[in-house]
Amino acid sequence: MKVLVAGFEPFGGESINPSWEAVKALPDEMAGAEVVKHRLPVTFRGVKEILPRLIVKERPDVVVLTGQAGGRPNITVERVAINVMDSEMPDNEGFKPEDEPVFEGAPAAYFSTLPIKAIVKALREEKIPASVSNTAGTYVCNTAMFTALHTIAVAGMETRAGFIHVPYSHEQALDKPKPSMALETIEKAVEVAVRTSIKA
Amino acid sequence: MKVLVAGFEPFGGESINPSWEAVKALPDEMAGAEVVKHRLPVTFRGVKEILPRLIVKERPDVVVLTGQAGGRPNITVERVAINVMDSEMPDNEGFKPEDEPVFEGAPAAYFSTLPIKAIVKALREEKIPASVSNTAGTYVCNTAMFTALHTIAVAGMETRAGFIHVPYSHEQALDKPKPSMALETIEKAVEVAVRTSIKA
Amino acid sequence: MKVLVAGFEPFGGESINPSWEAVKALPDEMAGAEVVKHRLPVTFRGVKEILPRLIVKERPDVVVLTGQAGGRPNITVERVAINVMDSEMPDNEGFKPEDEPVFEGAPAAYFSTLPIKAIVKALREEKIPASVSNTAGTYVCNTAMFTALHTIAVAGMETRAGFIHVPYSHEQALDKPKPSMALETIEKAVEVAVRTSIKA
Amino acid sequence: MKVLVAGFEPFGGESINPSWEAVKALPDEMAGAEVVKHRLPVTFRGVKEILPRLIVKERPDVVVLTGQAGGRPNITVERVAINVMDSEMPDNEGFKPEDEPVFEGAPAAYFSTLPIKAIVKALREEKIPASVSNTAGTYVCNTAMFTALHTIAVAGMETRAGFIHVPYSHEQALDKPKPSMALETIEKAVEVAVRTSIKA
Repeated sequence: MKVLVAGFEPFGGESINPSWEAVKALPDEMAGAEVVKHRLPVTFRGVKEILPRLIVKERPDVVVLTGQAGGRPNITVERVAINVMDSEMPDNEGFKPEDEPVFEGAPAAYFSTLPIKAIVKALREEKIPASVSNTAGTYVCNTAMFTALHTIAVAGMETRAGFIHVPYSHEQALDKPKPSMALETIEKAVEVAVRTSIKA
Repeated sequence: MKVLVAGFEPFGGESINPSWEAVKALPDEMAGAEVVKHRLPVTFRGVKEILPRLIVKERPDVVVLTGQAGGRPNITVERVAINVMDSEMPDNEGFKPEDEPVFEGAPAAYFSTLPIKAIVKALREEKIPASVSNTAGTYVCNTAMFTALHTIAVAGMETRAGFIHVPYSHEQALDKPKPSMALETIEKAVEVAVRTSIKA
Repeated sequence: MKVLVAGFEPFGGESINPSWEAVKALPDEMAGAEVVKHRLPVTFRGVKEILPRLIVKERPDVVVLTGQAGGRPNITVERVAINVMDSEMPDNEGFKPEDEPVFEGAPAAYFSTLPIKAIVKALREEKIPASVSNTAGTYVCNTAMFTALHTIAVAGMETRAGFIHVPYSHEQALDKPKPSMALETIEKAVEVAVRTSIKA
Repeated sequence: MKVLVAGFEPFGGESINPSWEAVKALPDEMAGAEVVKHRLPVTFRGVKEILPRLIVKERPDVVVLTGQAGGRPNITVERVAINVMDSEMPDNEGFKPEDEPVFEGAPAAYFSTLPIKAIVKALREEKIPASVSNTAGTYVCNTAMFTALHTIAVAGMETRAGFIHVPYSHEQALDKPKPSMALETIEKAVEVAVRTSIKA
């Protein structure tokens, strides 16, 4: 059993990205599964190039992608990725796509194949506020989720995959009037999500 | 040196109040000061009766009142208490005052005499998001803060006093789309606020 | 040229639904097109039964569905409908589906075939705040949008269709601390959206 | 009978200030009272200099100050002004006071002497969402309200005075995900507030 877990580099002027901090802190083996960790760039081009190669090379049983959703108050487990790239905020190499498909000719959307409700339940049992989200946006996070699910579908793999958004860490929100979570809690949340996904 | 620290009982349908959980967890001695802890009722009448007696009896050097401000994303250090009780939500004994003064003939407002900016700074140094708040509302929290400051003023005491609002704990927000903090962080925040107030 | 425009009956304890108020106020002919108006029930079963029959019977060139998104601050033009019904809030006949498909075997999602960016632009030109939304939720509104687009796809029609969410009207938010819009502005917004969709 | 009504110049990068737009649109006579209109600068120094002179010169029976509170969803009638100037955002001449009193030796606060609950009620009767606010902040708006009430108190005048905050106008929020109101509604709101204050 192998699980691929990815987080992102910082973006939007932040000096850390709590998703990568949380992924980095995971053990190398969880619930009997080998854990492969990867830090993704916040670029549309980057995730579209890197994720397919990584998934085909590693052939993981489970893919848990994680990203930062600054402003959200809790852990959100994404339900669906859509075939759109659309952003007024440039990515980390300055690209601002406008209503472009992630992959021409691909389906409009893919649903997460992770056990999203079970993850929310497991998080709440660990006293971590969580909910299902119905949009991963149209920025790089959605593109990453769409790319992973499309790669798996096209390759005819059985891999389960999905995306978890985490709030700002406290460190990022010290003087922002925005919700945030302790990095320890975010780390715990990602661990619980991965563990629940492995066991599903 | 003696510091009086108070939190509140639960209200609004909650089963805990993180302010009292945090106060309860404080050590009995901090920075050389004796710590006296008190759990206040969420009733206008109650805080107006209890706090003056307690302050006159204990003659603390510092009073740190704490309460729950569900929905706020960070620790808020209150700047000012106003001479008003006004609420459409009944208190824990069903009282809903409408535009009544806390104390007839008292000043319109008292400013916190705690080092509010130093507390915010100390909290941020401990990686806890915090800011100054310019309103403690017109419910029981504001009445408690006003009562403490008015009691001290009338009695001609030198006691420094003020109020710290804390967000929902994670436990309270598991399935609410509202900001919350780990109880451990809230406990740490109250400890930092008390310690900073003692040293001021 | 024929355009079908629908709004919803009230739900969630409200006494009006601004979407239907706005639809009701439309003229019977717009930009040379006949305007057919319909008031939909806020029931999953209802919209799944009524919309396909209505679309097949009327064979409209354009379908503009509208609904209330209480709490949103502006007019939101939905980008995508997903094949899920999932709600903890019962619909108007007490049904609370959990992770059910709108139509078994249908695609995961359909994109709006209305000119969503052009509608946002036209609204702003009329001084009405607007934006694209990436989720119509998983309640009855999304089901209505999905049903319309699926019906059109299955029937091989050329009809363009989509969904516009409107905020609370002022009347609904008089004493709520929530964003709202004048009903006249909401009416104007729906008119602009319909007109822009006809001309596309 | 004379009423002084003031609004502010634009600030914070905006090209209009809806408070002044609304004041400008008032008739010159309302409910038998002469209406004197004034446009205030968004500077701490400016309002502290201009308002006392204006009030002493005009000797109005009623003073209704109005300002923009971008982000608030409804009309807010301020309850209290506090003796503090504290801002990290510079005013329109670059001044950023830190915890300074508006007037040294003045009381901690003044309550509005306008009929705040009656104004909220009258606004709601006109289908305009409104509520009482317990903080006018610590920026120029609060300083203006404090200055007017302090001037009146020191001069021993009988003038009633207070402050009304208005949301962004739609024009300002076309592409912001923030609440806003039609300028016509804001104008109507200020008119209702002034009329209710005159009649009180």
